[in-house]
Amino acid sequence: MKKKWLFTPGPTPIPPETLLAMAQPIDYHRSESTVALIKDVLQKLKHVFQTENDVLFLTSSGTGGMEGAVANLLSRGDKVIVIQSGKFGERWADICTVFDVEVIPIDVTWGNAVEPQAVETLLTEHPDIKAVFATLCETSTGVLHDIEALARLTRVRPTLLVVDAVSGLGADDLQMDNWAVDVVVSCTQKGLMTPPGLAVVALNQRAWDAVERSDLPKYYFDFRKAYESGLDGSVPYTPAVTLLTALQCALDRICEEGIRNTINRHNHLATATRSAVKALGLSLFATSPANTVTAIRLPEEVDGKAFINLMLDEYGITYAGGQSQLSGKIVRIAHLGWMNENDVIVAISAFERGLMEIGCAVPIGAGVTAAQEVFHTFKY
Amino acid sequence: MKKKWLFTPGPTPIPPETLLAMAQPIDYHRSESTVALIKDVLQKLKHVFQTENDVLFLTSSGTGGMEGAVANLLSRGDKVIVIQSGKFGERWADICTVFDVEVIPIDVTWGNAVEPQAVETLLTEHPDIKAVFATLCETSTGVLHDIEALARLTRVRPTLLVVDAVSGLGADDLQMDNWAVDVVVSCTQKGLMTPPGLAVVALNQRAWDAVERSDLPKYYFDFRKAYESGLDGSVPYTPAVTLLTALQCALDRICEEGIRNTINRHNHLATATRSAVKALGLSLFATSPANTVTAIRLPEEVDGKAFINLMLDEYGITYAGGQSQLSGKIVRIAHLGWMNENDVIVAISAFERGLMEIGCAVPIGAGVTAAQEVFHTFKY
Repeated sequence: MKKKWLFTPGPTPIPPETLLAMAQPIDYHRSESTVALIKDVLQKLKHVFQTENDVLFLTSSGTGGMEGAVANLLSRGDKVIVIQSGKFGERWADICTVFDVEVIPIDVTWGNAVEPQAVETLLTEHPDIKAVFATLCETSTGVLHDIEALARLTRVRPTLLVVDAVSGLGADDLQMDNWAVDVVVSCTQKGLMTPPGLAVVALNQRAWDAVERSDLPKYYFDFRKAYESGLDGSVPYTPAVTLLTALQCALDRICEEGIRNTINRHNHLATATRSAVKALGLSLFATSPANTVTAIRLPEEVDGKAFINLMLDEYGITYAGGQSQLSGKIVRIAHLGWMNENDVIVAISAFERGLMEIGCAVPIGAGVTAAQEVFHTFKY
Repeated sequence: MKKKWLFTPGPTPIPPETLLAMAQPIDYHRSESTVALIKDVLQKLKHVFQTENDVLFLTSSGTGGMEGAVANLLSRGDKVIVIQSGKFGERWADICTVFDVEVIPIDVTWGNAVEPQAVETLLTEHPDIKAVFATLCETSTGVLHDIEALARLTRVRPTLLVVDAVSGLGADDLQMDNWAVDVVVSCTQKGLMTPPGLAVVALNQRAWDAVERSDLPKYYFDFRKAYESGLDGSVPYTPAVTLLTALQCALDRICEEGIRNTINRHNHLATATRSAVKALGLSLFATSPANTVTAIRLPEEVDGKAFINLMLDEYGITYAGGQSQLSGKIVRIAHLGWMNENDVIVAISAFERGLMEIGCAVPIGAGVTAAQEVFHTFKY
């Protein structure tokens, strides 16, 4: 009786009513009902982005939204700061380089968050910096960056703050309007509890002004076309209608819960997970851990890849391993999207048993007990 | 008891077993089973492309595949021929222009196919032409272009033939290897009976050689990255896993039928539809009509938009209207993907009744009778 549990930081589990909504006969993308669907989805996304700005969507992975941000905001030879603290920060730099944008990197040790002071120093040294590219939750390390602090630096300067909130949106707080974040990029298969295939992007007026000045080539990811057509629920190219239907289900859930509650729930689950990790005598990889995913440093004697395989084969549990330089060294357990206390208990209890089975002695039961104490003591 | 019927040239109806396959719990994109799924899909696509070349996929609409073809094959200032005979031919030119590629257009009257002689003349005048951009079925007019004839011109020259087979693949014949077509771009929501959200592209060795020389910026649509990761079933970015599952179902059906039979079936359905149109005293818009979709010129007294709306409201039937300059002037009935004789009979019978209802006298029953005669007389 093997049951599968998915604890990867994307794709995240899809609620069954969403799965079944996708099993409806497909509709024409220019029908009245699809037009209404698109308008509804774009309206509800504003609540999740905590913004009054319009949101646009693209049929692509989140990386398509990231490429779009670079190609639509900048011009050849522009100078930008990229905060690199993991695989996804590096992706911003890779995209900028492809488009002949000059990157001034801030290299942060993996597992750490950027010091806002380091960004401020660079911004002062280079007043011609057009944008700062940051990451809300660096999925590869589980680190949460202090986007509010970065926004305090950019909003008083003619410098845009562009945030990859691919994994973090809906799990870690990101108050686009209150903090004055200029551009937020995310996608569907994380906190939005929808299969992968749609990127979602919001821009404020400063960002749209930059779009007007941009000379980089873009066609499919042209934000103006996506935005303008979205206003009347139309689309420039055939969109992933099925995924829009799914996204509407997810947004209905989040709007019903309320985004502040959604974020608090994620914080609650993350707090319990971190507490469990410590109770097991293990350590967190991230110095400032995100609500999205918990990265756990494995004891040196544990072969991380073997552990991930064991968990899947014996327990039906999918955790994520480490990427790039962290391969085999960490385990990442997501508490993201369609998750509550019961899922976290499953994730932790299986983790305990798996570690014992692979020969890493941990105080069995200590993890779930610690999580229980958090769940019992705190309400959200 | 209204039943809905979708006769648009994309999205096309999805078989119920595919809809239900998408309702399975989602899997991690780096799991063994997803890796196997990706490999299987890419292998089976070769059969549909009638090629031994490897096929790659992108999470995007078909237009993303078109942009990828331009960005991966060419360099700034390259000169290309674009055959413009409708909305989708024009799209090739728009993309090339965005990327600073010089376009020599061949403007073909909408409804007509390109004369290969016109292409040959230009190729001789401009021996430095890097590529010819063509369209298999121009969806906006229902025209089939003679790709085999174009390939005869390009295969003896150092000029690539790049074909938009977005709507035509699997319906109109395109023998990539036999004809020596260099690049074929398509996507899922047409002949492949899968929801929109994936583009599929095949390149031959000449095209890959051009990719090596290309200096245009590309990141998300980088064909080499997509191709190399596809070899071992991995992916550079989170793909639309759900749509890959659906695509596998569709490919199983097509491989079982056999691509030659699939194309013959589409030809059979198209022949019957054209015969019905003529029997009703109406005329085809395309001089060389495709198997994919039949574009019908409406009598001047018929308001095309009102007719499309009537068909949807009263009959539950979605046809496609005309686009751009053809808005209100034509009706397009697709016989594409998951369709057989019964669907065509429904499409034609409703068409007859709808025309009568909107005040356009046609010999009622003549259309379905003509279709029946085709179905009864010819086997495929």
